[in-house]
Amino acid sequence: MAHGSGGSMMHALIESLILRKFSNPILNELADGATLGLKGRISFTTDSFVVSPLFFPGGDIGKLAVCGTVNDLVMTGARPQYLSLGLIVEEGLEMPVLERICDSIALSARLASVKIVTGDFKVVEKGACDKVFINTTGLGRIISRNILSAKSIEKGDKIIITGEIAQHGLAVLAKRKNLDLKLNIKSDCQELGGLLLPIIEKSGAVKFMRDPTRGGLGTTLNEAARASRKGIIINEEDIPVSSQVKAACDLLGIDPLYVANEGKAVLVVKNKETGRILTMLKKHRFGRKAAVIGQVSDDFKGKVVLNTIVGTQRLVDMLSGEQLPRIC
Amino acid sequence: MAHGSGGSMMHALIESLILRKFSNPILNELADGATLGLKGRISFTTDSFVVSPLFFPGGDIGKLAVCGTVNDLVMTGARPQYLSLGLIVEEGLEMPVLERICDSIALSARLASVKIVTGDFKVVEKGACDKVFINTTGLGRIISRNILSAKSIEKGDKIIITGEIAQHGLAVLAKRKNLDLKLNIKSDCQELGGLLLPIIEKSGAVKFMRDPTRGGLGTTLNEAARASRKGIIINEEDIPVSSQVKAACDLLGIDPLYVANEGKAVLVVKNKETGRILTMLKKHRFGRKAAVIGQVSDDFKGKVVLNTIVGTQRLVDMLSGEQLPRIC
Repeated sequence: MAHGSGGSMMHALIESLILRKFSNPILNELADGATLGLKGRISFTTDSFVVSPLFFPGGDIGKLAVCGTVNDLVMTGARPQYLSLGLIVEEGLEMPVLERICDSIALSARLASVKIVTGDFKVVEKGACDKVFINTTGLGRIISRNILSAKSIEKGDKIIITGEIAQHGLAVLAKRKNLDLKLNIKSDCQELGGLLLPIIEKSGAVKFMRDPTRGGLGTTLNEAARASRKGIIINEEDIPVSSQVKAACDLLGIDPLYVANEGKAVLVVKNKETGRILTMLKKHRFGRKAAVIGQVSDDFKGKVVLNTIVGTQRLVDMLSGEQLPRIC
Repeated sequence: MAHGSGGSMMHALIESLILRKFSNPILNELADGATLGLKGRISFTTDSFVVSPLFFPGGDIGKLAVCGTVNDLVMTGARPQYLSLGLIVEEGLEMPVLERICDSIALSARLASVKIVTGDFKVVEKGACDKVFINTTGLGRIISRNILSAKSIEKGDKIIITGEIAQHGLAVLAKRKNLDLKLNIKSDCQELGGLLLPIIEKSGAVKFMRDPTRGGLGTTLNEAARASRKGIIINEEDIPVSSQVKAACDLLGIDPLYVANEGKAVLVVKNKETGRILTMLKKHRFGRKAAVIGQVSDDFKGKVVLNTIVGTQRLVDMLSGEQLPRIC
């Protein structure tokens, strides 16, 4: 508890852990706030991370906390620059665990070219939180050639997903429930700036992007359909799902359309330039499995329709209940 | 749990609660991030709030979450403009409680002239957090005439506190422990922009400001002494403490120097302009009890020394243990 007191033990911890891991000139000032020189249109986004377990195949809460907020910035067309870091730690959490999480945050931040410039550290009594919660809030400069907005979506636009879906949610589920599926499913948790920023910087063909995290691809497409007041028609056979994920979903009776992703994006792009965008995506290692999965329609306004493998059509609604809590 | 799923119940809650309480054109876009036009030097700060109990005399977790982050921006010389809001809610929290907190956030934001422009909402299972935790991260434009920094502190500068100390920590303590002290101590939780921004905008006489929250006045002065490598000498008889707080501290065996404040600031000001600054502070209702409590010295470098009422001198160290956890 004393590490969260604001007193000398907290100062020692901040110097030995936080400053050592995340050192940069702005953070090192240890002011009440970081002073930044910003210009232009700035994107500002926040996310709290409460994932359980803290470590899972393919990632951990630290990597997730960086990639999640970085990706939200990228989705708005911004190049991520700065993150704040708010840690809430349960009394008694082992120091090596905290250190491992901080190492993961530092590495992920480096890979995403963002700096952690300000932070906060709280300790709560045993039982008052589950090990550690992390808030990251991000700032980035908007660099997309056009304004990315669901309102610019039109009939004929194509829907692209940047890779295979449903890995993150299943990886967390399997780990939490100790399911030995023998399927080796790893979270897809990764930052998407490297894949997407070069495309939206050069091309005005991408109209809208969103990362299908909580609620999965199905919910994200519903958000796009509602906000644009257009219909979205997708083809089941075109949606990339790995054979392992397919097997796990069949086994567990889960629809992969509602399983969270943490390293994928849905893009709505101009019909004529779809081929060019897809080619660019496929050249990047995080976009090799990118696919066109559907198109925008003036029918079914505000709704998402799936053409199934067996030739039928069905509505894809938003996730309504809770498939698996605390996946991010 | 379904309210945190990312699905339709979460969308409904966000529309019925969040958008209704905090509505503004930027937030209403419901994008992955808020798009802001910012220019100049920007201050960026984050704070997580885990106070227990959620409601206490003089405030609640919502008011605290706004004022705490707003005040951190003000301390860096910035006019607060935008806040993000991250809510982590325990499953089963009664909706009227959440609504009351959101009302308090909305009112406090209005009083501090900040807009809530982006947010995040997570629900964790019963027992995985204590009712509700809030992260607010703030942005503001730096408007102080000079750069506020401990490094500019010099011998002869005066130390001002903007009012009576130790109210917040005692109010929370009494409420949590159900102490019926019959002393009617209320938290001083309030935003400090109205009091301090007009002063630092016009005058270059304030060199450094910090709000003595966790760790209290004693710890904050130690931070200033360490960062400036100067000594700080304060006079016990000049430190404003209300008779109720004095009585409670005597009763409980607590040193008011280490009790958290949430609506006070320590200012280090140029000796010659101290009188003028004090007069300006005293004109504002949040500064009526402002007082000069000491001065900066070339002796005792990096340390804080107290001239006691009984005529002795003693070192004031940083708080080392934990006096009372979860006061903010």
